[in-house]
Amino acid sequence: MTKEDVTAMILSAKKQAGLTWEGIAQSIDMSPVWTHSAAMGMNAMPADKAQALVQALALPQEAAAVLEESPTKIWEQSVPTDPCIYRFYEIVGVYGPTLKALIQEKFGDGIMSAIDFDMQVTRVEHPKGDRVKVEMSGKYLSYNAW
Amino acid sequence: MTKEDVTAMILSAKKQAGLTWEGIAQSIDMSPVWTHSAAMGMNAMPADKAQALVQALALPQEAAAVLEESPTKIWEQSVPTDPCIYRFYEIVGVYGPTLKALIQEKFGDGIMSAIDFDMQVTRVEHPKGDRVKVEMSGKYLSYNAW
Amino acid sequence: MTKEDVTAMILSAKKQAGLTWEGIAQSIDMSPVWTHSAAMGMNAMPADKAQALVQALALPQEAAAVLEESPTKIWEQSVPTDPCIYRFYEIVGVYGPTLKALIQEKFGDGIMSAIDFDMQVTRVEHPKGDRVKVEMSGKYLSYNAW
Amino acid sequence: MTKEDVTAMILSAKKQAGLTWEGIAQSIDMSPVWTHSAAMGMNAMPADKAQALVQALALPQEAAAVLEESPTKIWEQSVPTDPCIYRFYEIVGVYGPTLKALIQEKFGDGIMSAIDFDMQVTRVEHPKGDRVKVEMSGKYLSYNAW
Amino acid sequence: MTKEDVTAMILSAKKQAGLTWEGIAQSIDMSPVWTHSAAMGMNAMPADKAQALVQALALPQEAAAVLEESPTKIWEQSVPTDPCIYRFYEIVGVYGPTLKALIQEKFGDGIMSAIDFDMQVTRVEHPKGDRVKVEMSGKYLSYNAW
Amino acid sequence: MTKEDVTAMILSAKKQAGLTWEGIAQSIDMSPVWTHSAAMGMNAMPADKAQALVQALALPQEAAAVLEESPTKIWEQSVPTDPCIYRFYEIVGVYGPTLKALIQEKFGDGIMSAIDFDMQVTRVEHPKGDRVKVEMSGKYLSYNAW
Amino acid sequence: MTKEDVTAMILSAKKQAGLTWEGIAQSIDMSPVWTHSAAMGMNAMPADKAQALVQALALPQEAAAVLEESPTKIWEQSVPTDPCIYRFYEIVGVYGPTLKALIQEKFGDGIMSAIDFDMQVTRVEHPKGDRVKVEMSGKYLSYNAW
Amino acid sequence: MTKEDVTAMILSAKKQAGLTWEGIAQSIDMSPVWTHSAAMGMNAMPADKAQALVQALALPQEAAAVLEESPTKIWEQSVPTDPCIYRFYEIVGVYGPTLKALIQEKFGDGIMSAIDFDMQVTRVEHPKGDRVKVEMSGKYLSYNAW
Amino acid sequence: MTKEDVTAMILSAKKQAGLTWEGIAQSIDMSPVWTHSAAMGMNAMPADKAQALVQALALPQEAAAVLEESPTKIWEQSVPTDPCIYRFYEIVGVYGPTLKALIQEKFGDGIMSAIDFDMQVTRVEHPKGDRVKVEMSGKYLSYNAW
Amino acid sequence: MTKEDVTAMILSAKKQAGLTWEGIAQSIDMSPVWTHSAAMGMNAMPADKAQALVQALALPQEAAAVLEESPTKIWEQSVPTDPCIYRFYEIVGVYGPTLKALIQEKFGDGIMSAIDFDMQVTRVEHPKGDRVKVEMSGKYLSYNAW
Repeated sequence: MTKEDVTAMILSAKKQAGLTWEGIAQSIDMSPVWTHSAAMGMNAMPADKAQALVQALALPQEAAAVLEESPTKIWEQSVPTDPCIYRFYEIVGVYGPTLKALIQEKFGDGIMSAIDFDMQVTRVEHPKGDRVKVEMSGKYLSYNAW
Repeated sequence: MTKEDVTAMILSAKKQAGLTWEGIAQSIDMSPVWTHSAAMGMNAMPADKAQALVQALALPQEAAAVLEESPTKIWEQSVPTDPCIYRFYEIVGVYGPTLKALIQEKFGDGIMSAIDFDMQVTRVEHPKGDRVKVEMSGKYLSYNAW
Repeated sequence: MTKEDVTAMILSAKKQAGLTWEGIAQSIDMSPVWTHSAAMGMNAMPADKAQALVQALALPQEAAAVLEESPTKIWEQSVPTDPCIYRFYEIVGVYGPTLKALIQEKFGDGIMSAIDFDMQVTRVEHPKGDRVKVEMSGKYLSYNAW
Repeated sequence: MTKEDVTAMILSAKKQAGLTWEGIAQSIDMSPVWTHSAAMGMNAMPADKAQALVQALALPQEAAAVLEESPTKIWEQSVPTDPCIYRFYEIVGVYGPTLKALIQEKFGDGIMSAIDFDMQVTRVEHPKGDRVKVEMSGKYLSYNAW
Repeated sequence: MTKEDVTAMILSAKKQAGLTWEGIAQSIDMSPVWTHSAAMGMNAMPADKAQALVQALALPQEAAAVLEESPTKIWEQSVPTDPCIYRFYEIVGVYGPTLKALIQEKFGDGIMSAIDFDMQVTRVEHPKGDRVKVEMSGKYLSYNAW
Repeated sequence: MTKEDVTAMILSAKKQAGLTWEGIAQSIDMSPVWTHSAAMGMNAMPADKAQALVQALALPQEAAAVLEESPTKIWEQSVPTDPCIYRFYEIVGVYGPTLKALIQEKFGDGIMSAIDFDMQVTRVEHPKGDRVKVEMSGKYLSYNAW
Repeated sequence: MTKEDVTAMILSAKKQAGLTWEGIAQSIDMSPVWTHSAAMGMNAMPADKAQALVQALALPQEAAAVLEESPTKIWEQSVPTDPCIYRFYEIVGVYGPTLKALIQEKFGDGIMSAIDFDMQVTRVEHPKGDRVKVEMSGKYLSYNAW
Repeated sequence: MTKEDVTAMILSAKKQAGLTWEGIAQSIDMSPVWTHSAAMGMNAMPADKAQALVQALALPQEAAAVLEESPTKIWEQSVPTDPCIYRFYEIVGVYGPTLKALIQEKFGDGIMSAIDFDMQVTRVEHPKGDRVKVEMSGKYLSYNAW
Repeated sequence: MTKEDVTAMILSAKKQAGLTWEGIAQSIDMSPVWTHSAAMGMNAMPADKAQALVQALALPQEAAAVLEESPTKIWEQSVPTDPCIYRFYEIVGVYGPTLKALIQEKFGDGIMSAIDFDMQVTRVEHPKGDRVKVEMSGKYLSYNAW
Repeated sequence: MTKEDVTAMILSAKKQAGLTWEGIAQSIDMSPVWTHSAAMGMNAMPADKAQALVQALALPQEAAAVLEESPTKIWEQSVPTDPCIYRFYEIVGVYGPTLKALIQEKFGDGIMSAIDFDMQVTRVEHPKGDRVKVEMSGKYLSYNAW
């Protein structure tokens, strides 16, 4: 049983039970972003969360161990083609130097961690059309000098 | 006089006056992210903001027209090498499908606009090490069926 | 049942019934461009259109739900090799800066949306050889300043 | 004197005289798309049009010969990064197979020429936001069998 | 039944009957280049030629319809590695600008069509070693000005 | 003095004297394809031809030695963008396997040399539009077995 | 039966019989380099050698015809990753211009053929560690002028 | 003074004195391959050889120190286009797995060093056309197990 | 039975027996880095180590011969996406020129071998967070001059 | 004054004074790896170290501010060609999955930081040839779950 197998089981169970990622996340008391990512096999689950997900979706018990495994994170398109994902790539291309300049102005020479990191996606109502809000938070890491 | 010339003038004026992007942004009453991006030649300035920046930094008057021009947004590295920018690229690689799934769950089949878009970067204090907070907001655009 | 499966069913039904895309599109009261694209799995169908297509082509009922799913839009050739598709790529290469310049002259700094978008293909008779007419229409989106 | 030199002269003359591409095109009795493209050095001008442009913009006489030269059409980004141009690239990626299928349904096995080709860009008013209309017309070319 | 299936049938029939491409082409009264290309699934056959090929090689009747389908022309190696094919790629690299210059000198600003196109390959005896002769003929297409 | 310098001199002399490649080639008693290619710095000239060209175009004597130098043949676009050159690339992509199959049918396992090679370009009148004829001739080289 | 099938049979027979490439080559009276290459499907065998190999390794008779087929030579990694193969790639990168300069000094403007070509690999004893000796021999081909 | 500067001086001195690489190599008592490579800035010279070359070609004394510097070996074309260099690349593509198999058969699991390495190029007379002989010798390096 | 098969057996046996790489390495008296690499099929095992591993993990006897085979080392991502592996790629990008400069300062013109090479990974306790220590040791190889 | 300018000044001062990186590093009381990297413009110097370097090498005072600036870390070759640097790239390719597996075995799901990171290079004497020792140390970062 591989991570791909477990992802397929989760998607199937979600569809049959008419669940949302929001709902699945609540049932294991984690955020929707992290829950979806772990379900896709892009993050590893702690034992208790893996167990909770297995129960919530009535997956076979063996799936819990698979959800706990450290994934190898691979994406095949260095430039993503899906328009929804490409727009985020475009933001990195257009605003990457700006993000770098402002992080360095506020913190010094360093980066925002993508490992000690969390993210939220929310819907914000707006009279001219609702908006997607994405909030990222990552630990600042300072370059070492030795 | 090109956008590159004006960017060089801005960087030089900023250095000599000991200013920050935060401070420059305040002086023209715009956000630091947008101000830096426009100063780098990656966004066009409305006439009043271009005028305000020219005055705030004592740039030559001709610079205002250049700041108002629509830029051609080019980035040469399809995968950025700078570690601070790469981490954002990595986030898109790892979490791109998750962002897409949650946007579609909350809104339907569509995307977050990268054009009708704004972004903030802030420093958040944290006992285990301060954190970088990045907030993006983009208008939801629904795919058309015709 | 995946989008690939449904595409195969549609192509098979179309062939056996001797239908055209024009005819299929009429039977669900949508345009041929959008109908073909959704049939190829590159666009999601609203529920009523999915239902209409399932009936028109006598597809299994399960196919309707698949047609409604949001697709992940992937193309594998960053430069397409098929001559018919390459010519459109070539037009973007040769006339891309021109399209940008004229959009900005007519609207200001912004883009034509590829999401709030529609397209028609028609045959135009011409004494020196008939011509392909492609009409695209996309909502103008203005860059935000904040 | 190269095509790059002449392009720079045209852009400078256009700026100083406060002209638009629409206006320049009218003054030489050609379309704005073709006029811009030839001004950018991506198309060759017939002798009378080159002469007309030289007079309209008071360019040096030598520029006329340069405008008449056949250009070598080069674009350096196989995937364009500028968002306004990228959206057209995306349309080719998403709808390329659809364009091909409909051309073949309407004409037979062949392509739309990108050489015997013309294009218009217009602004269309719309209550939910004005729209960009792009009309392409290319001669149908049938594959040869021999 | 796909074009790949039909190609496999043709290759198998050709091998078992000990035929040559020259011979197959004669049996359907077409050129060897076009016949091979259509047999490989890189060109579509008119109905009568598809029928003739099915009879000549005793293919199943269903193959005729497949041979008539418009192919999507895909090649996966943007730089071909096979030495025999690479040499032609090399000729385009070395002599491409020369072909362009001479076409423009003889015709004006335009191209040789690769669609309204035919090609022959012949063996020419030569005392220092026989030579391969390749003759290409394509319709001249003039760039449009509008 | 480099090959680029000499190419620039030749282009300038050709323009001022109103010559054609056909004419220049005749004046040194060589073919237009080879003459253009050597003038572009993609082939080396034998001493007598270099001398003849220097005299025909009144180039500085030093240019003769440069024309005799072996060039390093470099092309920067692995997939050419210019439409006139791209069509030849497309022909290699579409018909490469066909060229290989027919060469092997007529000669055995081997290739057409691109070194012991010559090429002609001619204009052929045709009632439906004149055609470009390209004739290539290369020595057949048989793979060695040892 | 494909070339891949025959390669697998040869590797299996070689393993079970405990043979070396040196030994197999001797049994068909050819060199080890050529024998291995043909066994891998990267060269075609003359009929007598194919027959000899089939007998030496007790392959099915059908394999002989497959060994005689002209292969399409494909390698998928334009930069090889295996360290043993990469070192040869590196030699071409570092010493390529040197090989070219010396060939032209000794022969004139031309190349070493990779078709009319042979190669040997031998082990040379050396007190500081044995050495690999690779000897290549290819016919000199002179560029044509016409 | 950079390695590029010294290479230019060497080429100029060689041309003016009518020398060959063979001759220059003899004058410093090294091989032509290594001498050319070091002259191109792709290898570092020991102090005595750098001194010898400076004297042989009457270079400025400062050039000796530059010739002794360790170069950074960069080649910009991962697939070389020059036909003379490409043929060697092709040999690595076609015969790379064969070289690997024979090295491992003769030595065990390891590689031929490209660092403790030397190479000769010679002209071999042959009745059917003279041949280029390339001899490479590199130390065998065995993979470590630890 | 291929190296992939044996890797799968090892991973399965390891999981079922609840072993660590550290433990497996100890049982065959080799380092964890080398043991893991050989188990992944990226290094060949000496006969005694292959035998020891087969016994330690109760693999089928045939696996020993497979473990002894020389692997072809292939990695498909020239820029790795997994964050844990990418960080090492980033170190090579940022510090590669520094590693080169210091090796040359300490040894002369040459390289560190990646073949006569070993590596250790250890966990080092640290009050601000434990650290990963990676120690590489490779034989210095001096460039040859000949 | 840019980082490139300061790097050139440092290299020039180092050469004229006959210094080593080891010596320069000692004079500012930092490690040779970090000192070289900062001198190359790939790391930012704290103010006191920048001042110390300016004094040690008698650089102009303005250089100190440049050394303190945060660099944008760019490397242009995604696969490095220099053999000394390539070997480290090869180690990442061959042993990357092993480094990942052992880090996860010893620490859990996470990575070694390349930011909170230090490295040493030393020469180790060895009877069969001295060895390069590279020691890397990076803080372990655990993936966040939220």
